[in-house]
Amino acid sequence: MNLGFYMPTKVIVGKDCVRENSDVFKIGKKALIVTGKNSAKLSGALDDVKYALEKNNIEYVIFDKVMSNPTVECVYDGAETAMEEEVDFVIAIGGGSPMDSAKAIALLAVSDIERKNLFDGNIGNKALPMIHIPTTAGTGSEVTPYAILTNHEKQTKKSIASPCLFPTYALLDAKYTKNLGLATTVNTAIDSLSHSVEGMMSKRANIMADVIAKEAVKIIASTFDDLISGELTEDDREKLLYASMLGGVVISQTKTTAVHAMGYSLTYFKNIDHGRANGLLLGEFTKYIERNDKDRVKEILSCMNLDSAEEFKNILAKILGDKEKFEKEELELYAEIAQNAGGTLNSMFVPSKDEILQIYVESLM
Amino acid sequence: MNLGFYMPTKVIVGKDCVRENSDVFKIGKKALIVTGKNSAKLSGALDDVKYALEKNNIEYVIFDKVMSNPTVECVYDGAETAMEEEVDFVIAIGGGSPMDSAKAIALLAVSDIERKNLFDGNIGNKALPMIHIPTTAGTGSEVTPYAILTNHEKQTKKSIASPCLFPTYALLDAKYTKNLGLATTVNTAIDSLSHSVEGMMSKRANIMADVIAKEAVKIIASTFDDLISGELTEDDREKLLYASMLGGVVISQTKTTAVHAMGYSLTYFKNIDHGRANGLLLGEFTKYIERNDKDRVKEILSCMNLDSAEEFKNILAKILGDKEKFEKEELELYAEIAQNAGGTLNSMFVPSKDEILQIYVESLM
Repeated sequence: MNLGFYMPTKVIVGKDCVRENSDVFKIGKKALIVTGKNSAKLSGALDDVKYALEKNNIEYVIFDKVMSNPTVECVYDGAETAMEEEVDFVIAIGGGSPMDSAKAIALLAVSDIERKNLFDGNIGNKALPMIHIPTTAGTGSEVTPYAILTNHEKQTKKSIASPCLFPTYALLDAKYTKNLGLATTVNTAIDSLSHSVEGMMSKRANIMADVIAKEAVKIIASTFDDLISGELTEDDREKLLYASMLGGVVISQTKTTAVHAMGYSLTYFKNIDHGRANGLLLGEFTKYIERNDKDRVKEILSCMNLDSAEEFKNILAKILGDKEKFEKEELELYAEIAQNAGGTLNSMFVPSKDEILQIYVESLM
Repeated sequence: MNLGFYMPTKVIVGKDCVRENSDVFKIGKKALIVTGKNSAKLSGALDDVKYALEKNNIEYVIFDKVMSNPTVECVYDGAETAMEEEVDFVIAIGGGSPMDSAKAIALLAVSDIERKNLFDGNIGNKALPMIHIPTTAGTGSEVTPYAILTNHEKQTKKSIASPCLFPTYALLDAKYTKNLGLATTVNTAIDSLSHSVEGMMSKRANIMADVIAKEAVKIIASTFDDLISGELTEDDREKLLYASMLGGVVISQTKTTAVHAMGYSLTYFKNIDHGRANGLLLGEFTKYIERNDKDRVKEILSCMNLDSAEEFKNILAKILGDKEKFEKEELELYAEIAQNAGGTLNSMFVPSKDEILQIYVESLM
C-alpha cells in the first residue's frame, strides 16, 4: 500500500454558513474579493460576505473582472490591484474561473513571477491566505492546490500548482447554486463527476482518494434522473455541492487525466464549457480504461449501478444532449496538443496519439 | 447538511517510507526525538529516522522517558529538554503515549503554560512542527489535534486539543508493527475500531467522517478472524495501520464519545490497556445507541456484516478474551467520574449517570 494524503483547507458546509461563521474572515484586515461580473451578486453570496466583513470591521475591495476561462493578463491585473490596495487576504466568490483566478492573484500579490515563467512549475510556496465560496457545484477548486488558466502561447488551459494555493477556508452553502441555469448545473455536475471518476483512473489513485471518489460518484449518480429531467430539488443542490467538494479533495490527491487534457482543446478552440467538454469525452475514455483494466472500471461503474462503460457513455450523452459538430482535422490538432499534456501522462494507462485521436473521434463524430 | 472538515497533516504510507522520504525531515535543523524505552529501537523505526536525519545533516537529541499513559510531569520534563537543547522540531516514534507526549512537548517548548492551566482549554495555537511515526496501529494520534495525558488531579486521562497539535507529517510503515505482541496488536486494533465506531455515534458525526469511518470499520472487520486466531499476516498489519490512521481522521472531526470517557477509569484505576478498556465497553454502548436509533447502528453494523449490537458485543468479547473482575462500588465511582466528561456529552445520545452505570455493569460484571 502506498499513499500520500494532504488537504489542509478547513471546510465548512451548511445553510447560511458565511453569515454564521463570519469570524473566519478575521484571517486578515483588508480583503480583495475576486469574482466575475454577475455570479457573486446574483447568488446572494456577495451580500453575505459583505455582511460578514462589515460585522468584523474588515475593509475590502472588489475585483470583478474575471471572465470565463480566465487569462494570464486577468490575474496579473488582479494582483496589481491587490498590491496597490495593500490587501492581506483574498476572498473568491464564484465558479472555477473566479476561484482559480483568486488563487493566482493571491500568489502573484506576494511573489515576483514573470509572465513567461508562470507555467514552468517553479512558483514557490507563498500566497496570501484565501477564503473560497463556490457558487457552482463543479470545480472543487475550493479544496485543491491548483489554478487553471488559459495559456494562449500553448493554445490550451494550463494549471499552476502549489500547496500554498490550498485556500485556508472553503465555505459551502448550496443556496448560492439554486438559481443556476440548467446548462450550468449540468455542466458543473458532470465536471465534478469527471473529477472523481478520473481520480480513480489516475496513476496517482490511492485507497483514501478512492473512498472519497466512490462516495462522490454515488451521490452524483443519485441526481442523474433529475439532471436529465431538469428538475433539480434543494436536496440535489446540496448533494451536488458536497460531491463537487469531494471531487476536489480527490483530484488534489490524484490530479486529473487525459479527459481534462483532451477537454481543454474543446474549450480553447470551440468555447465549449469546461464541464461539458469533459463529459463529452469521459464515456469513451472510460471505455479505453475498461479495455485495459476491466475490474477497475467495474469498481467505478458499480457506484452508479452500471454494468459497462458503454452504458455510462450513453447516460452521459442523455444528460449532455446534442453534440457540437467537429471536423477530423480539428480533432487531429487536438490529439497533437493532448498527447504530451500532464493529464494524459497521469492516466493509469497512457493513450498514444492514435488512441487519443480515436477517443476524440468515437466521442465527437 | 452541516459539516466541518479540517485535517492538515501530510500523510505518507508505504514500505520504507521514512528512508525514502528523508527530505521531509528538513522541516528543521535540530530534532527532539520523543519515544518510549523500547518501541522505537525494537521496531527499527529509530534506525530509519537516524538514517534520514544523518543523510540531511540534521542534529538530534533523544528523549526516551515516555511511559505508558504519560503524565504531565513527563511532558514538562521533555519540554525542558527541548528548550535546553534548542531543537526546532519534534519527531515522535511509538504508540499513542510517545505521540501524545511529543505533541504536548512541542506545545510546551514554545508556549508558557502553567501546569495547573494545561487542561483548561486555553493552550493557544503555537507548537514546534512535528513528524509522527506510529509503531502501533491504534491511536491515530499521527493525524489528530489531540494529546491525551494522565491527569492525577481529576483521577482520569484528559485531552488537550488545538489545531497546532496536528503533526506536519505522518509517516506510516507497517513493518514497524510486525513484531508487536498479540495483546498489543489486539488492543490497538480495537482502539482504532472504537474510534471509527464512536465517530459514527458522536454528536459531531458528519457525512464526510462517516465515509472514512465506514471504510475503516470494514477494513478492521476483515481482520477479526486473524485477531481471534492470533495469526496476523503482513497484509493484516498494513490494513490495521491504515485503518488506525483513518480512525484518527474520523475523531479529529468528531471527537470520541462516552466509550472513551468511561474507558479512562479502567485504565486509571485498574491499569487496563486503553484500547482494551474501550473494547470492553464498546459493545454495550453500541447497544445503548441501538435502543435510541436503530438505523444508525445498522449503518455501522452493516460494515461488519453484523445484524445486532449484541452480536457485535459477542465478537468483541471473543477478541478480547477473559474479562477483569470489578466490584459494583468501583463501577459507581467510575460512573460518577464519567457522567460529565467531554466524551460522554459528545455522544449522539448522552447517557445519564444511571445509564452509564448500567453500561458498566452489563459490560463488566
